[in-house]
Amino acid sequence: MDIKYTINAEEIFKARNSSLYKYGKDFAEIQDVIKKIGSKPVIDMVSDEHKALTDRDAKEIAKLGLISVELIRDDPKKFLAYLNSLVVIDLSVLAKLVIHYQLFGGTILELGTEQHHKKYFPDIKHMKIVGGFGMTEMGHGSNVRNIETIAEYDHQSKEFVINSPTPSSTKFWIGNLAKYGTHCVLFCKLIYKGEDKGVHGIVTPIRDVDTKQVFPGIEIGDCGPKIGWNGIDNAWIRFRNYRVPKENLLNKFANIDDKGEYTCKLPTPGKLFQNTISQLVFGRMLYICGPVRVLNINLKTVINYALSRRQFGEKGKSEELIMNYPSHYQVLLPMLGHLVAFEIARDSVIERLFDKNEEKLDETNSIISGVKALVNEYNMTCTNKLRTFCGGNGISSYNLFGYFRNEMDIFQTAEGDGAVLYQQLSKFLLSEYKKWYKKEGVTGYIIKEVQTFLATSNPIYTHSRSIPYILSNEFHHHAFSYRFEKMRSIVIEKLSHSKSKKMTFMQSWNDTLLYIIELSKAYTHLYILEQAHLSIKRCTDPPTRQLLNDLIKLYALSSIENDFGFYRNYNCISAGQALKISEAIKELCIAIKPYALDIINTDNSTSFDIPLAKDGNYIQHMASRVGIPFSKL
Amino acid sequence: MDIKYTINAEEIFKARNSSLYKYGKDFAEIQDVIKKIGSKPVIDMVSDEHKALTDRDAKEIAKLGLISVELIRDDPKKFLAYLNSLVVIDLSVLAKLVIHYQLFGGTILELGTEQHHKKYFPDIKHMKIVGGFGMTEMGHGSNVRNIETIAEYDHQSKEFVINSPTPSSTKFWIGNLAKYGTHCVLFCKLIYKGEDKGVHGIVTPIRDVDTKQVFPGIEIGDCGPKIGWNGIDNAWIRFRNYRVPKENLLNKFANIDDKGEYTCKLPTPGKLFQNTISQLVFGRMLYICGPVRVLNINLKTVINYALSRRQFGEKGKSEELIMNYPSHYQVLLPMLGHLVAFEIARDSVIERLFDKNEEKLDETNSIISGVKALVNEYNMTCTNKLRTFCGGNGISSYNLFGYFRNEMDIFQTAEGDGAVLYQQLSKFLLSEYKKWYKKEGVTGYIIKEVQTFLATSNPIYTHSRSIPYILSNEFHHHAFSYRFEKMRSIVIEKLSHSKSKKMTFMQSWNDTLLYIIELSKAYTHLYILEQAHLSIKRCTDPPTRQLLNDLIKLYALSSIENDFGFYRNYNCISAGQALKISEAIKELCIAIKPYALDIINTDNSTSFDIPLAKDGNYIQHMASRVGIPFSKL
Repeated sequence: MDIKYTINAEEIFKARNSSLYKYGKDFAEIQDVIKKIGSKPVIDMVSDEHKALTDRDAKEIAKLGLISVELIRDDPKKFLAYLNSLVVIDLSVLAKLVIHYQLFGGTILELGTEQHHKKYFPDIKHMKIVGGFGMTEMGHGSNVRNIETIAEYDHQSKEFVINSPTPSSTKFWIGNLAKYGTHCVLFCKLIYKGEDKGVHGIVTPIRDVDTKQVFPGIEIGDCGPKIGWNGIDNAWIRFRNYRVPKENLLNKFANIDDKGEYTCKLPTPGKLFQNTISQLVFGRMLYICGPVRVLNINLKTVINYALSRRQFGEKGKSEELIMNYPSHYQVLLPMLGHLVAFEIARDSVIERLFDKNEEKLDETNSIISGVKALVNEYNMTCTNKLRTFCGGNGISSYNLFGYFRNEMDIFQTAEGDGAVLYQQLSKFLLSEYKKWYKKEGVTGYIIKEVQTFLATSNPIYTHSRSIPYILSNEFHHHAFSYRFEKMRSIVIEKLSHSKSKKMTFMQSWNDTLLYIIELSKAYTHLYILEQAHLSIKRCTDPPTRQLLNDLIKLYALSSIENDFGFYRNYNCISAGQALKISEAIKELCIAIKPYALDIINTDNSTSFDIPLAKDGNYIQHMASRVGIPFSKL
Repeated sequence: MDIKYTINAEEIFKARNSSLYKYGKDFAEIQDVIKKIGSKPVIDMVSDEHKALTDRDAKEIAKLGLISVELIRDDPKKFLAYLNSLVVIDLSVLAKLVIHYQLFGGTILELGTEQHHKKYFPDIKHMKIVGGFGMTEMGHGSNVRNIETIAEYDHQSKEFVINSPTPSSTKFWIGNLAKYGTHCVLFCKLIYKGEDKGVHGIVTPIRDVDTKQVFPGIEIGDCGPKIGWNGIDNAWIRFRNYRVPKENLLNKFANIDDKGEYTCKLPTPGKLFQNTISQLVFGRMLYICGPVRVLNINLKTVINYALSRRQFGEKGKSEELIMNYPSHYQVLLPMLGHLVAFEIARDSVIERLFDKNEEKLDETNSIISGVKALVNEYNMTCTNKLRTFCGGNGISSYNLFGYFRNEMDIFQTAEGDGAVLYQQLSKFLLSEYKKWYKKEGVTGYIIKEVQTFLATSNPIYTHSRSIPYILSNEFHHHAFSYRFEKMRSIVIEKLSHSKSKKMTFMQSWNDTLLYIIELSKAYTHLYILEQAHLSIKRCTDPPTRQLLNDLIKLYALSSIENDFGFYRNYNCISAGQALKISEAIKELCIAIKPYALDIINTDNSTSFDIPLAKDGNYIQHMASRVGIPFSKL
């Protein structure tokens, strides 16, 4: 391979940010406020001080009046673009705004009715009231359905009486509420005439808006220092016969009318539950945006450093750039391929989510779950590796590896741990397959199996060692599809097998869990690849298209290499082919290496002040940061 | 498999800590001081305050007079046991003591002579002087040979004139010196009569012992906040015609006599250099102890939590313990297997290092490099996974996942980045092979190759799917040896092949780098396995032996599974065998699961106050930590 690419920065940026491209890279008004308040990553501050600063800065940004709950409804992409443009300030401030507008406000928007919108939206907009999202309890994280906080309806006073009946029912990690918040969307079991009606959302005042006094009946405190997000005041909360008026029930789907009658518009408690926790999907989408952005930033730091730091080399010559060691570029450049693939996938889920296609809602939610789990896992692994690629300089807080790792760690389990989210996607995939199977019947099934068999046992497929074939998008798509379909048949086979062993469905599901998770990963990888291939086709600029295509090939081949165990054990590729794949990866890396800096520089929208990321002169930038007076040299 | 183990806690502890066992689990005197000073992990403090606290606490421990440089010489295991007993305080304090006694004091011990020992040891003991290790520069990390700081000998005044000639020569990350240190072992190029004599160590006073004033000719400052070790005051230092008397040269090997003659006892500059940086080996050994200990602590937290936290489950029943999900125990228990294997390997390198067998010095140093790189990489990956296994509670600083990750991150690159250390080991392995090859000649070589070929092409080996065979230590040793030997032939083949392409040795080495690193990993895995098998044989208590053996089998099989790509691509195992290996891992996990808590509890020497790690009552412990008043319930 001897490739020369042409870099068209604008086109590459557009392809890497298709969904929000039309909003431009920044918003002047917000940038002005940021400059004024001077918010930047907090790297050396005690958490109480950090919380106070975060509260101040979030309110400064709110004062602008640009962000509002209505915007989520009217132009959600613009809402997202605003959040995106804020990824230059301390991430706790951003998190505070997200909890307040999207989780708290968005829940009122989706589950509440006109009266709630009128009553709360204006005060939310300017953060006159500050909201939290009261879901998690000490004993209940991902399994929201089992939360224990109860709101019993009192017919006499037309109020809900809220209680925390057990230690494990204590609300925990409730963001924005330990010190500064005033309201909370409280998720609790609604008890109506002694009957448990399931999880409902109730707007619950916590502190007096003016005096900031906590109301009687509420015990509240701070959850203490955390790995990240230390600017957020996460609360534990306990209720003791705390009363809120019935109007505070978010009653779009379930209502108690003036006569005290409980009604629910949705056909099943399951549907009600699904709608009740719907804001989590938007949150998960943000939890895809975060790590993708961070991967971008960290790669920029590492690529700049790798092209300026020298170490070891031939005697008598200047030391070698660390970028030129295969232990460096063969790790770094596949990450760049993943970044671009992830960016395209992120844009595709944004489009899907805002498309609001009711029929595809389940599919969208499931895909978001898979992508959220995958990119977070990948990003955390990368962050660690990338830090080591900067040696001691990577340890300096100024270069933000530690900062981003700490801030991103939470993303891995918040709003759904990877293992739980992967299961959610697999459930969807299996139920889709069941539908298809029912429609096509056994004949369709057999045809499909035979096709797969033929495709993989055909030596042209499994044994071709020709580099053009190995580099072809067809091969990649074929391999990813095969992995997905094979995992699906394995899961189905294992589930049916354990059925014959008289296990309950739950037992058999859990017994198959590792394969179920693999199935989900395989599908997510395939989904990302397909979105990337589609996006490449849409790209009208030929040089950009070629470059993107090669980056996606790197994503595909390095994923296959990473999973050689599977591909070999299930006879999708031969040993000889596997070795050729590793060679192809190396060649792609060597071809892309001279362009790595230009590629990563096409997105300059994040302007964190990172000494190693500026340019080739890391010694100068580190020196000026720690106050070394070179001028006197 | 239906195994019942008998847990003999004392025997297991002994097997897991054979090297330091005779020193007991703690030292009463040190524990008293720790109680008095109340040092514990610092999780929410600005770095300047943390540095002051660290300085105070380190000096309190020094006051006891138990630790000294002489102890490193007279009873290094006791020295190590003291350090080990300190892994209950904030790790910055420990780091400060290590830099001071081992790196600073140890270098004076090894490179200095009687006069230096007499002059400095008493003041080092009680930390009247506080020392640092002045090696790294802004432009030079792992490649110590290229440091630029110069010490030119002035014959007239019999002094060295020290200068930092370039920005990149600025000393950087020099621990203990930014605020509180008084002396430094400075590594610099000795210029004698205009000739560069290579890297030498010179004791260099930095601050006045009484007034703490920095001496003229020195510019010094703090490197700023870091990912971890924020109690350490890391300095940047620049010298301008700073003079130190010739007596300060550590002159055991290289000396300038009273007549101004430079002499060196060692045959080559390479040998002098190797001796000069010898303290790094001891440091690397400590960098093995650290992550192994941390893996132990984190596993204890996660196992306790997994046996108390419940999530999801059959309808109408209480939720399932998270330990019972394969996505949990099939990840967690192989880590427990690795922990025990690593503990045994750690003990074996301690024995090797203190054995001081000159002939085996090279081998020992190389093995330590490989083990250091491997355990640190493994531990960092585990820490992230283990954090997610505790969900939101893992995010709380009180459970120390973030703390340990931040403190351990530095270990990955300090005193040698993994990629550099693996290369060091591979160089040793290849030169050993060359020696053997020369001795045995072509016949020996062919016999060895044929043996390997027979062993692996024999279907009994490569295709046996019998579980007893797959579980046998012979199979594991065979597979690990095969991987090592195969990687070695691949590397040799690639190196000779590129020779024919007229590459320089350096080019050809770098072109083969990924394989060279794999070779080193393969050997390190094999070394650990062999040490574990030896240790099991030495264990005289049959139930303990069986349990240890099964834990090591889990280490071995999960390593093989993790590297299925290699084993399949190089025809060491068949596809059918691979699937059986995964089954065997599952069975081993299921057998060990009920004993996991007892196993991890055999080592209670670390008594960090971690809420989740105490026992099954995590809600109570978290609640009491954040002040939730359950008593009123």
